[in-house]
Amino acid sequence: MHIDQLDTPSIVIDLDRMERNMAKLSAYCQASGLQLRPHTKTHKIPELAKRQMASGARGITVAKIGEARVMADAGLNDILIAYPIVSEVKARELAALAERARLAVSLDSLEAAQAVSHQAAERGVVIGMFVEVDVGFHRCGLGRPGDAVALAREILSLPGIEFRGLMFYPGHMLAVRSRQLEMLTAVNDSLDRFHEAFRDAAIHVREVSGGSTPTACLSAAFHGLTEIRPGMYLFNDRNMVGAEVAPVDDCALSVLVTVVSTAVAGRAIVDGGSKTFSSDRFLSGDGLGYGMVAGDPGASVEAMSEEHGHLNIQDASHRYRVGDRLQIIPNHVCTTINMHERVYGVRGTEVQAVWEVVGRGKLQ
Amino acid sequence: MHIDQLDTPSIVIDLDRMERNMAKLSAYCQASGLQLRPHTKTHKIPELAKRQMASGARGITVAKIGEARVMADAGLNDILIAYPIVSEVKARELAALAERARLAVSLDSLEAAQAVSHQAAERGVVIGMFVEVDVGFHRCGLGRPGDAVALAREILSLPGIEFRGLMFYPGHMLAVRSRQLEMLTAVNDSLDRFHEAFRDAAIHVREVSGGSTPTACLSAAFHGLTEIRPGMYLFNDRNMVGAEVAPVDDCALSVLVTVVSTAVAGRAIVDGGSKTFSSDRFLSGDGLGYGMVAGDPGASVEAMSEEHGHLNIQDASHRYRVGDRLQIIPNHVCTTINMHERVYGVRGTEVQAVWEVVGRGKLQ
Repeated sequence: MHIDQLDTPSIVIDLDRMERNMAKLSAYCQASGLQLRPHTKTHKIPELAKRQMASGARGITVAKIGEARVMADAGLNDILIAYPIVSEVKARELAALAERARLAVSLDSLEAAQAVSHQAAERGVVIGMFVEVDVGFHRCGLGRPGDAVALAREILSLPGIEFRGLMFYPGHMLAVRSRQLEMLTAVNDSLDRFHEAFRDAAIHVREVSGGSTPTACLSAAFHGLTEIRPGMYLFNDRNMVGAEVAPVDDCALSVLVTVVSTAVAGRAIVDGGSKTFSSDRFLSGDGLGYGMVAGDPGASVEAMSEEHGHLNIQDASHRYRVGDRLQIIPNHVCTTINMHERVYGVRGTEVQAVWEVVGRGKLQ
Repeated sequence: MHIDQLDTPSIVIDLDRMERNMAKLSAYCQASGLQLRPHTKTHKIPELAKRQMASGARGITVAKIGEARVMADAGLNDILIAYPIVSEVKARELAALAERARLAVSLDSLEAAQAVSHQAAERGVVIGMFVEVDVGFHRCGLGRPGDAVALAREILSLPGIEFRGLMFYPGHMLAVRSRQLEMLTAVNDSLDRFHEAFRDAAIHVREVSGGSTPTACLSAAFHGLTEIRPGMYLFNDRNMVGAEVAPVDDCALSVLVTVVSTAVAGRAIVDGGSKTFSSDRFLSGDGLGYGMVAGDPGASVEAMSEEHGHLNIQDASHRYRVGDRLQIIPNHVCTTINMHERVYGVRGTEVQAVWEVVGRGKLQ
């Protein structure tokens, strides 16, 4: 099928760029001796997870049990749920899933650890467990090394559980690249304190899982890191360009839209709004705008209604007409893919793949 | 089922409040001699659309052909697609759908009108058509009465099409209620000019479709209005409370979440973020925060990651513990429901209904 035959709005993925992005990070991890466990919350597509495995990943990361189930159903069998599993219902489902895939979770409370242990022991399975530590993002994670050691010690005594190590997410490092190095020093000071406390307590930390796309190419500099969990690197987006993490030419995903109205002067309305792109903001830039119009830096995606994208075309490089088709690179790929039932893989102008976003909406 | 048995995050709808909201607006429309055509993009659930019809609606509104198809499949048969249908593919699908439901579209360009007419005539169906006019929101719609008359004249000459009247969306009136009256004067001046131009041209404008939830109770004051298309009135949300359109007690929808981490001081993390609530902002307030914690005005939903809701609990009225369950009223109900595969209707603490959000993801 030719790309012109796709109805709009549709997500199109430039397969050449995606494959280049995938190969580049795999090569970096191999050269750095780091394990790669891509976060598949970015795409929620089993087929892409399999391609990541074929490209050298040692397993995958997900955010929810529902996402893990979708991936396990498709044959992925080494899955980290990088999210605290808290309730009895969820712990029971986790244990059931552990019968058909090697699972691990991260958490920062004894309550969560006990619930998982109880269900795992009852079902006779073993679930891996990472203690989440806070290295500066202040979202989840224990900030004091003594608390992390104390939780790990409890975990070591629980049945049905294998303590695997520490997990962190450096979410505060999503900043312009030049500022990442000074932040890295503080993160490493923090990591050093955790490593020291675990050494003093004689608890072996086999794995340290961290990282993200914005910090991916700094990964070798994190102290003691064994594994990274980037997601966006496959596609990149306007935020990654704004943070100087990727050039525009490494953006592999865009949304194909059609101009549906030019009635208001200086404006073109396209058939994708916040229910197509999400309303995630340009966090690594000035906070303004909802995407980049491919090939026309003079046009700005100024506002989003639910189904209308409002383009300001006062400084656009060409005239926009009703029926024109454009490609818009979104602010944030993860939340954009999450709005779509399927995505299209394109090489040149040829649609070569149609992938269902099987894991979307699996919120529980 | 008891509400405590629901897994989280889950959308719960207080049926008593929803029914009260529904009855109130139906009564207002009846008393004002206005037709009610609820915008079902808010919920995308056929069963709720049917309840709106049973409560006095004359038909429904949708934003996309995919949503119209879902509603027609469920037996809804008077549907306005309040969105310009532009491409040949879409016009063909619209015409096919018109064989089994009374359809109308709104648009502001001859290109769109011709495409629809061509496919309708080819298939031997008649599709209603509204000319969209701009009364101040500056999104879609013709701003000059002469242009609207010219387009209507073209439409009157096209086969397969029935010209039904004018359509507008007063999106700029989503403001604090006290400011709506002065804005209404400007909108009415604009409407008067359109009415006059159509009278002068001797073109009968049978219907004028306008309105929204924020302006619903002002509807009788719009000049010449015959029909309104509110969506959010069923549920209301934090934006409607902020705009003084509804009191908190009229908010019928909330998201049930669980506290999954309290490791960081002053903060509680719940298991719903932007992929559960959307990242729509508090537009009718200070722009800050992503929801209201029911029963605890001292806790604020300060930030959203994709799967983490960040609560600032420094001024909270009680201590939050891992495993606690809370209900959060979202900023914007339409984009929140759109993130979920299903919602739960609750009376008291009893779950009485489970509704699939059948129309979600129907972007085309």
